[in-house]
Amino acid sequence: MSKSNQKVTEMDIPAYITSLGQRARGAARHIARADSGQKNDALLAIAAALVAERKKLLSANQKDMEAGKQSGLDAALMDRLELNDERINGMAEGVQQIAALADPIGEITDLAYRPSGIQVGRMRVPLGVIGIIYESRPNVTADAAALCLKSGNAAILRGGSEALYSNQAINNCIQQGLQQAGLPGDIVQVVEITDRLAVGEMIQLQEYIDVIIPRGGKGLIERISQDARVPVIKHLHGVCHVYIDKAADLDKAEAIAVNAKTQRYGTCNTMETLLIDQAVAGEILPRLAARYKDAGVEMRGCDQSRAIIKDMVTATEADWDAEYLAPVLSIKIVDDFDTAVSHIQQYSSAHTEAIVTEDYSAARRFLREVDSSSVMVNASTRFADGFEYGLGAEIGISTDKLHVRGPVGLEGLTSQKYVVFGDGQVRS
Amino acid sequence: MSKSNQKVTEMDIPAYITSLGQRARGAARHIARADSGQKNDALLAIAAALVAERKKLLSANQKDMEAGKQSGLDAALMDRLELNDERINGMAEGVQQIAALADPIGEITDLAYRPSGIQVGRMRVPLGVIGIIYESRPNVTADAAALCLKSGNAAILRGGSEALYSNQAINNCIQQGLQQAGLPGDIVQVVEITDRLAVGEMIQLQEYIDVIIPRGGKGLIERISQDARVPVIKHLHGVCHVYIDKAADLDKAEAIAVNAKTQRYGTCNTMETLLIDQAVAGEILPRLAARYKDAGVEMRGCDQSRAIIKDMVTATEADWDAEYLAPVLSIKIVDDFDTAVSHIQQYSSAHTEAIVTEDYSAARRFLREVDSSSVMVNASTRFADGFEYGLGAEIGISTDKLHVRGPVGLEGLTSQKYVVFGDGQVRS
Repeated sequence: MSKSNQKVTEMDIPAYITSLGQRARGAARHIARADSGQKNDALLAIAAALVAERKKLLSANQKDMEAGKQSGLDAALMDRLELNDERINGMAEGVQQIAALADPIGEITDLAYRPSGIQVGRMRVPLGVIGIIYESRPNVTADAAALCLKSGNAAILRGGSEALYSNQAINNCIQQGLQQAGLPGDIVQVVEITDRLAVGEMIQLQEYIDVIIPRGGKGLIERISQDARVPVIKHLHGVCHVYIDKAADLDKAEAIAVNAKTQRYGTCNTMETLLIDQAVAGEILPRLAARYKDAGVEMRGCDQSRAIIKDMVTATEADWDAEYLAPVLSIKIVDDFDTAVSHIQQYSSAHTEAIVTEDYSAARRFLREVDSSSVMVNASTRFADGFEYGLGAEIGISTDKLHVRGPVGLEGLTSQKYVVFGDGQVRS
Repeated sequence: MSKSNQKVTEMDIPAYITSLGQRARGAARHIARADSGQKNDALLAIAAALVAERKKLLSANQKDMEAGKQSGLDAALMDRLELNDERINGMAEGVQQIAALADPIGEITDLAYRPSGIQVGRMRVPLGVIGIIYESRPNVTADAAALCLKSGNAAILRGGSEALYSNQAINNCIQQGLQQAGLPGDIVQVVEITDRLAVGEMIQLQEYIDVIIPRGGKGLIERISQDARVPVIKHLHGVCHVYIDKAADLDKAEAIAVNAKTQRYGTCNTMETLLIDQAVAGEILPRLAARYKDAGVEMRGCDQSRAIIKDMVTATEADWDAEYLAPVLSIKIVDDFDTAVSHIQQYSSAHTEAIVTEDYSAARRFLREVDSSSVMVNASTRFADGFEYGLGAEIGISTDKLHVRGPVGLEGLTSQKYVVFGDGQVRS
């Protein structure tokens, strides 16, 4: 692989990416027709190969880790890059779990007779060729390949350059699995050149790639969305809110507001701003402040909050926009429900918002009026996740409105065509 | 209107379109929250206004017709442009029918408990602001406004410059209806400048327009798709096929192949290429040729077809790609099922394809392997239509795979967000 990589000069990149696209388009027809058994055989063989090739995976990863050390990758990136026994087992189990999911392809729904006598329904079909652009975690290679394969799509995977050897070793296991199941290897292709121009070419390749899914930081995704000609399923940032309504059960409010902030700091469904109705702020804010202090969370509050908790930092305008991904929380006391919803409409990234309330009408209004990919009543924002929602696995969380919104599982990688059954009907 | 039109100079166009976008975004919040009764009230009031303002509509249309005559519009365009009593009644009835459809907004589906105790489902929500770019037919103004309104979206409508006065008169009726129902007028805005730059601005306005739906010729749609930064729901051309399988019931085959070609020539779901299995060509082709001759359909055939029907024109490569929209048909005799499917894969525009067969396995394979927005067994391609499919109305037929495929009704103008109901659950 390193050889072919060195051979591809800048001049060749468009031709190279186009050839990947052409091969993917050809392979897409095969995987679209593959039956569920054959797809599951391939997935289980991939999982077995990941375990059997453990040593090769670790040694390829070692090469990436050494290169990363030399190029001065920071500790967080090095951690993401690392493969170890546990992570390899996790990858294999992930692929097995995808094998165990129901096959979405071919499902016919809403089949009904029309007055003309024809019977019309919708059949779930693959999208075709999916391009996935991601950063350092090599496990995405196995996850993404497995999700695309199960949903009947061909995949072109462009991982981070720092994980090139690891991704290639994982792809070798994928190729073994495809071969064992009698499926063409081109169903999954890993881009072997690290030049950024390769990404630029992929996102222009409308003829051969049906959708691009970028997984990574906000910067990567905005850059790709800006330049792409191929449709992009975007997973932007999460500025998630919890609103403690005046009719909240304060024990639930405490549990949810603590969990939504502190259960994990670096995830997109972590609460970044807490809104508290002024009617209950005097009672609930001191309880929460004590919990946040214990957890080491820095609080940045509005003036009203600071009147209750004196040693809080003052929140600036930038705080209401911030996705901290860190033990930092902005806190605002609001006059009422409407003020809370207005604040969310202004500052939310439309990812996930929760209300804590026992009031029926407030719950209904919040569900209807808050326009985010997940809207919750009396539950922690941390639940916004494909596994927790029962999708079985996810390739990301869409903050788009078109095609798919929220956690994207197998169904998000499919489309529906109309099917019509007749007995010779003609239109009059 | 003509005054404001004249006042907008080229310099002002970006600012003008941006202001439409801002006003639409503001109005979108109102219409998203409007309840079904209020939306239906507005629709019925619009329908009533269209009938009550008949004279004004006719006189505005007369101005457009005269301008069209002077600028030398061809007869087909003049016909599309014309409003008369029947067409005005048709517009009003169309709006009433949309009022009678079920409200898609707020519907919650797939609500299920998860092991964590949370209950997760999906709620149907509007897309936000929809930009519609269309050509000469003024009735699209009423149709599109009504579909957007019912699905809880704000609309920015940019009709053909040749229909400007008609569209403005229709918009006056829409404004009356919105006002009577107590809804903001900015829910529906008609672009008042005819400069093409206005379209260029609309399709770049990512901040304020969520999706663009172009309705018109292939050229218009390709141009818009090429330059748009806003997502586009495309309705491209229809190169539709009927394949008469060797196991076809030949009476059904005759009825379907005649209807699919001759029932209307100018529609995108009209058959353009007929594929006949060689096993039955000798029997069915002469029967069909006689019918096509009676109907005045010009046949262009492959060599094998011409061996059966001597006076057929030779089909060239360009014929297999052609959307004639005219009484012309290309005919090819194929060796078998696989050859037919390969031909379709190569030449189809992925709009609508039909097989005529009594063979169970051939029907199943065709449904699975043909990747078009509608795939039919023993029915005429002419059924590919929102009304025939039971959508109640359609704003176009999507030949895209993402978001919505096939006839686009109210549901295609919506998205789904996740809703979560809990009792204080936190993630562990």
